[in-house]
Amino acid sequence: MITAGELSEIVRGELEGNDEKLVKGISSLDDAAMDTVVYVEKQKDAWKLDRRKPAAVICSRALKLEGHNLIRCKDTRLSFGLAMRYFFPPEEHIGGIHPTAVVEEGAAVAPDASIGAHCFIGAGTGIGAGTVIHPGCHIGQNVSIGKDCLLHPNVTVLDRCKIGERVILHSGCVIGADGFGYVNDDGFQMKVPQVGNVCVEDDVEVGANTTIDRATLGTTRIGRGTKIDNLVQIGHNCNIGENCIICGQVGFSGSCTIGDGVILAGQVGISDHITIGEGAILGGKSGVYENVPEKVFYSGFPARPHRQTMRILSLLEKLPELAAKIDDIAHGDDEQR
Amino acid sequence: MITAGELSEIVRGELEGNDEKLVKGISSLDDAAMDTVVYVEKQKDAWKLDRRKPAAVICSRALKLEGHNLIRCKDTRLSFGLAMRYFFPPEEHIGGIHPTAVVEEGAAVAPDASIGAHCFIGAGTGIGAGTVIHPGCHIGQNVSIGKDCLLHPNVTVLDRCKIGERVILHSGCVIGADGFGYVNDDGFQMKVPQVGNVCVEDDVEVGANTTIDRATLGTTRIGRGTKIDNLVQIGHNCNIGENCIICGQVGFSGSCTIGDGVILAGQVGISDHITIGEGAILGGKSGVYENVPEKVFYSGFPARPHRQTMRILSLLEKLPELAAKIDDIAHGDDEQR
Amino acid sequence: MITAGELSEIVRGELEGNDEKLVKGISSLDDAAMDTVVYVEKQKDAWKLDRRKPAAVICSRALKLEGHNLIRCKDTRLSFGLAMRYFFPPEEHIGGIHPTAVVEEGAAVAPDASIGAHCFIGAGTGIGAGTVIHPGCHIGQNVSIGKDCLLHPNVTVLDRCKIGERVILHSGCVIGADGFGYVNDDGFQMKVPQVGNVCVEDDVEVGANTTIDRATLGTTRIGRGTKIDNLVQIGHNCNIGENCIICGQVGFSGSCTIGDGVILAGQVGISDHITIGEGAILGGKSGVYENVPEKVFYSGFPARPHRQTMRILSLLEKLPELAAKIDDIAHGDDEQR
Repeated sequence: MITAGELSEIVRGELEGNDEKLVKGISSLDDAAMDTVVYVEKQKDAWKLDRRKPAAVICSRALKLEGHNLIRCKDTRLSFGLAMRYFFPPEEHIGGIHPTAVVEEGAAVAPDASIGAHCFIGAGTGIGAGTVIHPGCHIGQNVSIGKDCLLHPNVTVLDRCKIGERVILHSGCVIGADGFGYVNDDGFQMKVPQVGNVCVEDDVEVGANTTIDRATLGTTRIGRGTKIDNLVQIGHNCNIGENCIICGQVGFSGSCTIGDGVILAGQVGISDHITIGEGAILGGKSGVYENVPEKVFYSGFPARPHRQTMRILSLLEKLPELAAKIDDIAHGDDEQR
Repeated sequence: MITAGELSEIVRGELEGNDEKLVKGISSLDDAAMDTVVYVEKQKDAWKLDRRKPAAVICSRALKLEGHNLIRCKDTRLSFGLAMRYFFPPEEHIGGIHPTAVVEEGAAVAPDASIGAHCFIGAGTGIGAGTVIHPGCHIGQNVSIGKDCLLHPNVTVLDRCKIGERVILHSGCVIGADGFGYVNDDGFQMKVPQVGNVCVEDDVEVGANTTIDRATLGTTRIGRGTKIDNLVQIGHNCNIGENCIICGQVGFSGSCTIGDGVILAGQVGISDHITIGEGAILGGKSGVYENVPEKVFYSGFPARPHRQTMRILSLLEKLPELAAKIDDIAHGDDEQR
Repeated sequence: MITAGELSEIVRGELEGNDEKLVKGISSLDDAAMDTVVYVEKQKDAWKLDRRKPAAVICSRALKLEGHNLIRCKDTRLSFGLAMRYFFPPEEHIGGIHPTAVVEEGAAVAPDASIGAHCFIGAGTGIGAGTVIHPGCHIGQNVSIGKDCLLHPNVTVLDRCKIGERVILHSGCVIGADGFGYVNDDGFQMKVPQVGNVCVEDDVEVGANTTIDRATLGTTRIGRGTKIDNLVQIGHNCNIGENCIICGQVGFSGSCTIGDGVILAGQVGISDHITIGEGAILGGKSGVYENVPEKVFYSGFPARPHRQTMRILSLLEKLPELAAKIDDIAHGDDEQR
């Protein structure tokens, strides 16, 4: 249990009200739990507080909320995140190798790492201290997985890939499948061996059923701190920067270079050999066929500055009107002549 | 074996011809099997009947087909479905737990449920009567799976998720991976713990390699009777209604609310916090950035009424012509002045 | 070890320089390895050679490169592929069935085939000579897998599917999940049993987490030599031709017919019952709603001839300008009147 005052410090807020009030947990606005802290983002949701009695309310300095214990915050989403992390610390895991797991000779599993049922760990592979590998994972040969990683059930990491520290891999993701590389030999598509690897740096998170292909030669890199959502496809030899946010179903062709801090919304597609500058943001479903400068917001098909896309889309809506106007003018001209 | 007359009743049709004729099975028009029932949807495919001797033909009342035993139906697709269900009833399964499966202490598996080879069933999990779990599935801890479900091989259902009755989960789908939630702490993307769950209601079907994320807090819900195709992404805290049809590669961001009976064609993308009204239909590849009313047909990027999208697309085709016309007029005006 | 002269013959090139020079391996231009062969595609990358001393350089006849041992090639990408294949021949595998694999009675595994840990092989299934099945794969009942196939870890091949010879299946792909077929029975979506199969012909490669659905009746076919990338969705009853290239995240609805040698770029979507002619190419993110003739290059939404799409997209960029021009003219007309 924690007091509202203590929680306020943890979430970097300022308390307005009773700092001795005990907070029993955290819950959503739609949830009926009593004596918990809740998070109100928008004024229009404030009425939801009337039905319940929260122990504290995380909110911005601007919100008008009466009769509640308020934790006023500068960045309410950040404060909510900090509160969630306080109430839901990482689960403890007991180390050890499940008797049904197969660990090949020559693999080195740290004593306090945990290997679940039916896992396979290949020869020459190292698993770092504190790393938890859930049931059904396949870790190939000569893989290196750092400390304190969390591999959810049924993850596949293939031969020679390197996973940093504190990496989270979600169920069904495949790290290190062959790149999609063929050469046309008189109409027959001949496979080019894909012998590079994938390097996933520290603090990366990879979503469920996402696929990251190994390089043809060299390395496909996912930079430190980058977060990748579900069902994303990352082609061979891509070089993804640090602290990027890559939303669901985004697809990268081969050999793309993505700067640090890039944000890609859902279903964006990126052509091969494209460079995206640091800090650029791409709107949902964008199709990227040319390099994108740094610190811009692009969208559309093909991707261009978002303002320009919005301008074009708004004119598209008026296209019937425009076409009618042209016909009018042409008709008018005809009459005049 | 069944007679054409009996089959006619099962498929809710009316027989024109010999109701004593024996029907040995069901086959497609392109298949050479003898003495089976076939389904002709369009008049232009009728010639395919000439090559073969079906025992009966399911067709609409309008089709002209001579010399065949006809089962005239109001809704031929429905009748075809009913015939398929008659000839291919669900397979029988023998209950029991395969010796290579790992069932943690404290899991409750109904005696006639079937747990395949190399499955993992976590502590606190309940598996209902008649449910069949094929090899390689991972069912986490404190999961509840109802009666008569069918889990194909290599499905992953993570901790605390709830699966109703008669639910079908296809291979590789992942129910309950973490939602994609981060807060930006001075350039570093900090993970927000995802501690809610997923609730898949009765009679839902989830396609191969589809991913449904758990809620941050609360529940991501898939309403009763909804059918989801392959490689679909459903973000955290979505609330999907009943009897929806969600086609392949559709993507939902977080916190979407989808009404009952909504139909989404392939590769549709839906932004976060969007509401789609009951019975709405969205065309393939639509990009949805604003709420969609009920009972409308929307399409395009951004999604708008389908008629309007078609109008705009048809004018787009004429854009070169339109541009030329404008140049002509401008030129004419210049000459006049 | 091989001499530059010998390598030159293997890659179908002509040596300019010292044919006795020993080549120790192959590396990328960005890699510092000494005495290897490298591949220079474009003149602008030639400067990268200055930093290092390759044993030989694969390049086109047109490139200007001085002071190096050159292997001049007609098709440099093909030559690079041939060199990769020389230096990285397929790995040797020892046959045998891992003790943790479950092989049901009535399955026939060739003596020199290899079945990995925790695999499941169903009754009635045959596995051909030289085929390697990595850990965690599920092969259902009555499946046939030909000679010299390579199944990466955690692949799922379901009942009654047929896999040809030399087929490569990547991790997480699902062959033979149910097609997405329902009939509407008074608002309730009733499942139509999916009882056909999938036939993957010789020399096909299927990417990670790709899904290929079984036919309702009959067969979903992937033609000989076709290469499919990751996260592709192929609906029931599709008939894909030979030697096609299908890039990442492409989606086919049901019953499509795709000619030989078709190339589909990433994220293309194809509506149901569409026919695409032999040798057609579709640009990234195309949406195909009507049949596509053979040997054309189509792109856009909806897909049309690429030149036309480019024309329209370029006019779209000018739409603000065009709209302004129309307003000017209309205004001018008003003034004149």
